[in-house]
Amino acid sequence: MNDRASINQAPQQRREDWAEAYMRVRAASEALCAPLCIEDYGVQSADFASPPKWHLAHVSWFFETFLLEPYLPGYAIFDPAFRTLFNSYYEQVGEFHPRAERGHLSRPTVEAVYRYRAHVDAAMRALIGGADEAQWPAIETRLAIGLNHEQQHQELLLTDIKQHFSVNPLRPAYRSDLATPRQGDALPLAWQGFEGGLIGSGFDGEGFCYDNERPRHRVFLTPFSLASRPVTNAEYLAFVDAGGYRNPALWLSDGWATVQRLGWGGPRYWERIGGDWHEFTLGGMRKLDLNAPVSHVSHFEADAYATWAGARLPTEAEWEHAAGAVPNEGNFVDADLLHPQTAVGEGLVQLFGDVWEHTASAYLAYPGYRVPEGALGEYNGKFMSGQMVLRGGSCATPAGHVRGTYRNFFYPQERWQFQGIRLAQDLT
Amino acid sequence: MNDRASINQAPQQRREDWAEAYMRVRAASEALCAPLCIEDYGVQSADFASPPKWHLAHVSWFFETFLLEPYLPGYAIFDPAFRTLFNSYYEQVGEFHPRAERGHLSRPTVEAVYRYRAHVDAAMRALIGGADEAQWPAIETRLAIGLNHEQQHQELLLTDIKQHFSVNPLRPAYRSDLATPRQGDALPLAWQGFEGGLIGSGFDGEGFCYDNERPRHRVFLTPFSLASRPVTNAEYLAFVDAGGYRNPALWLSDGWATVQRLGWGGPRYWERIGGDWHEFTLGGMRKLDLNAPVSHVSHFEADAYATWAGARLPTEAEWEHAAGAVPNEGNFVDADLLHPQTAVGEGLVQLFGDVWEHTASAYLAYPGYRVPEGALGEYNGKFMSGQMVLRGGSCATPAGHVRGTYRNFFYPQERWQFQGIRLAQDLT
Amino acid sequence: MNDRASINQAPQQRREDWAEAYMRVRAASEALCAPLCIEDYGVQSADFASPPKWHLAHVSWFFETFLLEPYLPGYAIFDPAFRTLFNSYYEQVGEFHPRAERGHLSRPTVEAVYRYRAHVDAAMRALIGGADEAQWPAIETRLAIGLNHEQQHQELLLTDIKQHFSVNPLRPAYRSDLATPRQGDALPLAWQGFEGGLIGSGFDGEGFCYDNERPRHRVFLTPFSLASRPVTNAEYLAFVDAGGYRNPALWLSDGWATVQRLGWGGPRYWERIGGDWHEFTLGGMRKLDLNAPVSHVSHFEADAYATWAGARLPTEAEWEHAAGAVPNEGNFVDADLLHPQTAVGEGLVQLFGDVWEHTASAYLAYPGYRVPEGALGEYNGKFMSGQMVLRGGSCATPAGHVRGTYRNFFYPQERWQFQGIRLAQDLT
Amino acid sequence: MNDRASINQAPQQRREDWAEAYMRVRAASEALCAPLCIEDYGVQSADFASPPKWHLAHVSWFFETFLLEPYLPGYAIFDPAFRTLFNSYYEQVGEFHPRAERGHLSRPTVEAVYRYRAHVDAAMRALIGGADEAQWPAIETRLAIGLNHEQQHQELLLTDIKQHFSVNPLRPAYRSDLATPRQGDALPLAWQGFEGGLIGSGFDGEGFCYDNERPRHRVFLTPFSLASRPVTNAEYLAFVDAGGYRNPALWLSDGWATVQRLGWGGPRYWERIGGDWHEFTLGGMRKLDLNAPVSHVSHFEADAYATWAGARLPTEAEWEHAAGAVPNEGNFVDADLLHPQTAVGEGLVQLFGDVWEHTASAYLAYPGYRVPEGALGEYNGKFMSGQMVLRGGSCATPAGHVRGTYRNFFYPQERWQFQGIRLAQDLT
Repeated sequence: MNDRASINQAPQQRREDWAEAYMRVRAASEALCAPLCIEDYGVQSADFASPPKWHLAHVSWFFETFLLEPYLPGYAIFDPAFRTLFNSYYEQVGEFHPRAERGHLSRPTVEAVYRYRAHVDAAMRALIGGADEAQWPAIETRLAIGLNHEQQHQELLLTDIKQHFSVNPLRPAYRSDLATPRQGDALPLAWQGFEGGLIGSGFDGEGFCYDNERPRHRVFLTPFSLASRPVTNAEYLAFVDAGGYRNPALWLSDGWATVQRLGWGGPRYWERIGGDWHEFTLGGMRKLDLNAPVSHVSHFEADAYATWAGARLPTEAEWEHAAGAVPNEGNFVDADLLHPQTAVGEGLVQLFGDVWEHTASAYLAYPGYRVPEGALGEYNGKFMSGQMVLRGGSCATPAGHVRGTYRNFFYPQERWQFQGIRLAQDLT
Repeated sequence: MNDRASINQAPQQRREDWAEAYMRVRAASEALCAPLCIEDYGVQSADFASPPKWHLAHVSWFFETFLLEPYLPGYAIFDPAFRTLFNSYYEQVGEFHPRAERGHLSRPTVEAVYRYRAHVDAAMRALIGGADEAQWPAIETRLAIGLNHEQQHQELLLTDIKQHFSVNPLRPAYRSDLATPRQGDALPLAWQGFEGGLIGSGFDGEGFCYDNERPRHRVFLTPFSLASRPVTNAEYLAFVDAGGYRNPALWLSDGWATVQRLGWGGPRYWERIGGDWHEFTLGGMRKLDLNAPVSHVSHFEADAYATWAGARLPTEAEWEHAAGAVPNEGNFVDADLLHPQTAVGEGLVQLFGDVWEHTASAYLAYPGYRVPEGALGEYNGKFMSGQMVLRGGSCATPAGHVRGTYRNFFYPQERWQFQGIRLAQDLT
Repeated sequence: MNDRASINQAPQQRREDWAEAYMRVRAASEALCAPLCIEDYGVQSADFASPPKWHLAHVSWFFETFLLEPYLPGYAIFDPAFRTLFNSYYEQVGEFHPRAERGHLSRPTVEAVYRYRAHVDAAMRALIGGADEAQWPAIETRLAIGLNHEQQHQELLLTDIKQHFSVNPLRPAYRSDLATPRQGDALPLAWQGFEGGLIGSGFDGEGFCYDNERPRHRVFLTPFSLASRPVTNAEYLAFVDAGGYRNPALWLSDGWATVQRLGWGGPRYWERIGGDWHEFTLGGMRKLDLNAPVSHVSHFEADAYATWAGARLPTEAEWEHAAGAVPNEGNFVDADLLHPQTAVGEGLVQLFGDVWEHTASAYLAYPGYRVPEGALGEYNGKFMSGQMVLRGGSCATPAGHVRGTYRNFFYPQERWQFQGIRLAQDLT
Repeated sequence: MNDRASINQAPQQRREDWAEAYMRVRAASEALCAPLCIEDYGVQSADFASPPKWHLAHVSWFFETFLLEPYLPGYAIFDPAFRTLFNSYYEQVGEFHPRAERGHLSRPTVEAVYRYRAHVDAAMRALIGGADEAQWPAIETRLAIGLNHEQQHQELLLTDIKQHFSVNPLRPAYRSDLATPRQGDALPLAWQGFEGGLIGSGFDGEGFCYDNERPRHRVFLTPFSLASRPVTNAEYLAFVDAGGYRNPALWLSDGWATVQRLGWGGPRYWERIGGDWHEFTLGGMRKLDLNAPVSHVSHFEADAYATWAGARLPTEAEWEHAAGAVPNEGNFVDADLLHPQTAVGEGLVQLFGDVWEHTASAYLAYPGYRVPEGALGEYNGKFMSGQMVLRGGSCATPAGHVRGTYRNFFYPQERWQFQGIRLAQDLT
């Protein structure tokens, strides 16, 4: 049984498997923090990115709030102040500390946060082992959410650390022992055609999915084709060199305003040193690998690139339809590259892992979607405004966390995630 | 032949009809300004709302730039400075004066702007009458766009004037001679069901439509029902009185942030005077008409209201499907009420006119959409990001300007248009 | 009797003289507005500059509030809404319309404002002619303030119009019939020495002065010298050409931050056209007159220039001491140049008129100063924070309005007044 | 010999004394950081307050830049990146990391910063011991500045830590072992009169002073009296309870704008818990000591309080004149209270220590002041704009650091220092 099975399981799974899965996910978060200095845990260099310490505590708060308090009799809250400090945005649970001020908190210390984690872990083991059968189904449902939630924060831990380290003129490396990415030429760009028609979209399988992947519903697709692999750094560099960032005709109106306001001239982590393009990575500054997929581009940039290239972004339904036939494998966090690498293989490659792929779809409810009752309904539903869908996971996503129906979402100007571009075209 | 026919016509229409339509549309803009003082023409009380003088000049700049300069031999530009001053946002045409500073321009004077209009009108008559047959199809296409464009600005003239007058503590009335709205009880709220299935969406008829209404394409709809009429002021007041603006659980996350940032406690023009709710209208302050449709609510408010009411907003495809069987008639600007009024009738009423109806759909490209070549491609395409679709026209829309496939779009926090709410529900 | 005498008079002056002075000052404001179009009256292109219409109404509000309401029995307020609309900042009188939104008010119309003025004028004549002897001394005191107040707004009318017209790409001229400025070479820069010692500062003469000019007090001055004339455009251009705006070592810390934030590269109204420096004036764009005094420089710029020139700005006590022996004459608004001109003469020239002269003194209370009782105490006292003193009046100041002890004050980054530089040096 | 003697000494002092003084000052900085967790070193909760780690490194950068690089042959820079990272604002030395982003730097680690300090210390000892006699006078001058500079940062360490801890909902105590403040009733408020006349101001003694205390010059003072002790918390509370923060008539215009913008309702660290006023201190939350001096009030608040109390703030010359006869003793940092305490004694008490005392004087150059040559001229001179003078030192100031002529300066809205109020009155 692998981690993927355990946290996305069918209801009849044994409690020992759950306990094991719980400990595995929790340990993975801590393992990601192992390379950090104490100082690294507290920094917040941008409103949208949290300090590592905050992530470690918040995911524990999640278990405490949604599982231990309601279901573990006699559970002793670790510290009542944490209810506010580590609530992210659940209005129905109570107040929360302002997001932009998470980096102002030197206390609790890192050591105290690890004690908090241990406190929660002990209680969670007790809950998983000892809960009444009557309550178990509800607990199991929330446990699956809690573990998937922690996995999402594992990805954010990495992308937030990258953000925080990137603004430091010392450009520190998070890891100096990362696996070496694949070398070699990029695959030639090919197009794979799809007939479309009335297809199904959304989750209806066994095991775990988020509420926003449901209900499965029908969508009509006109014929389209999808690029065989993501856009490479070399291809994106041609766009940059062609003046892509200086030509308003290529951009959405809000995108052009963003380019000018923020002074963008290339992807988030590109840096020109001497005459050469480099890229800040979790392994420190590296020469730009022209064969690897471009990463850290916003929806606005992805859309402008597609326009320049005479193509477009796929809709999420197109992407999901194409991904239906592709194995859920790829360069995930477990590959320990923490960076997208050059594509190899046949057919549609790198749909999963490497880079999240921008879509042309706004993040909205599926037909028939209902926001779940209670505070957990705030998990996904209230963000269905102003954001765009991305698909497929990245090199920072835990293996097994995503699936073909998985919907990630960010604002169109955001680009601190590993976000890349797969082109699409109409076939008519 | 009515105005509607003339500007949305089939290509074989006679040039005299075009000339007549042109003059009729142009005269309508000036008629809307007749109640203004010279002082009213220049004011800009918010970045999103332009001075009336600017509207009058900009629509003329549109004809000058897209028709007279390219197609009328020997055309003498009225004033070269106007190229920049009255360009709204066409990057491919050249620079433009900053939108937020349109109210800083006391010159050109109102009289000069009217001379500019007359200059353009004379040239346009010459162009329509004298253009080569070879060029006529291109001219005719642009002429239709130019006239529809001016009609859109006629609606903005009214909503911008309302905005500007509303911030003046004197609360001036734009008109004191408006027609009296219908009195009487609101219709009871009924629901009309639709089976859905694979339906067509988008324009494929004769005559004019905007590029964003094309191409017609297939959409799959699950069964749904639509409210027979828009939400009334009485119904919305119940939401306000129930603490709707103080309960984050009802709001989208960005909506709740907006409520708090802007201190919203009700629709844009509601005002409590003594113990009673009043409403600022183009006819001045009035007691709130509880039977009339609520207006000037943003997408965020519409969504929160629908959540509170146990319903949802319709998608644009649902709305369009339902509107297919309904005559394109209603309380448009020609009714001279300039305010939504109490619904009457059977079946789905007030789909057209009265208030623009919020939808659950982001403003995005239809499958197969291509941005038109050249600067006119900036008309609609570059705004397909961050905005939501509204349907059906309002009491400030010229009759005949909208149709079932017409897509209007605004940011989810905007509410200075006549925007109302029609509820929808899943039928399952 | 000239205007100066009448509004700065000794208490025994006859009421007819007061009535005449009142009408003369009031007429002067309206004369300044004669060249305006209706459209020009309402524009506000910056928070710090008001629409001309607002000035005309506010000075009338001042008479209404501080004289007619308290002293004229049965006086009928022209419009109660004006109490708020045209109150500038008198907290003790009631609320006021936000300063930054004065340009949002198309109503009252210009015509209504002139009716307001006429209404106030009629009542003021009645008050001046008919007030009880017992009340007359209090009335006379406030009348003098009211007339001096209106004169200050006459200067602001001109500098605000200049600001508003300057941001219009059409660069309209306020007047096309201005008197021609003196031609000829600039006087060579000479220095006049002063021994200093224990001198007197502040007003103790006959007639009117503002509260902030009192009490007269003793100040000890060390020996200093003062430049014979203000810095010329040629001299300032040398500073610009020497990279003055790019060298932080010359600037106060807050000044350098301002240069970078606002992108300053020269005085407020300088504009490079082709290869030549021009200057926007109340007579429209003109080629820069190198012999004339530099104008529209902030305190920060004046200080940086002085540092670059190896000199410093004079303190207000030094300036006042030097001005004690100089006749109060110069290029005031009555010269109808509305622009500083080349200096001529012997000794210290242009101390009065042409340009306000920056000093090194913060605007603070004199020893023994008491804020007057009541709302009129807000006239000067509450601004004694963060602003710097300027002396001597400008080409936009009514003749007779200023005197040697007169203290004007602006924030160190402000430069829309006619503000110039006279250098000083230590003599030791 | 005490610390004060050593760093403010006459030139003939022995080098061993300098070496000892250097090590004593350096050790004092590190002692202040002893109570911190690693996490506390990096936090920056407001733009104006730096992380402790930054202070420790910046003062070392100061020695490295102004002493080791120019004067120690063969000195090896610890890390070239620190030139930018730990330069505060010296434009002439090169670029500097943005002030508001000092808290974004998790690296260098705390341990690395301490290594940096040790590296600088070793080199400084070598320099002090081994420098040529020819260079010694210049070195000695800069050494005195460097040690006084580090003492200023010792005070900022404490006030910045207080700021950072105060925004943490856990309200951590920096120290739990502080000395107990004196108990007992406040002294009755008495007034001490001064005749004034032509007095001297500024430093002309032996030993060290800052450039801004020179040159000594003559000032004329009119008769005045000074309060015998600072305003107490009880007295200030009466102002709060009387609605002082809601009455604009008491405030400077910019002060009132600040009150409204920031929502002030009391001093910076007052907090109402239950029905009682508490105060956040470096020892954690405490009940408000009504007899102790009020602290953490801005210039705006001090001015408003004085107005309400029918008094005024003293000028810096008045303060200095009065302080001339008072011993330079008091509650400084060495008393280890880190908080102002109840006054005792006769005559003018607490002029030195406890709280910095607001004055009515803008921070400007004395007559004859010259900005020193080179980058060290940026130490004081460029801040002579927009700030107000405070006098006398506080409970966070190292004993011996201040003197009667010492001028501290802050913006009128700032209040995170230990800033209190001593009243003055005119005697006439």
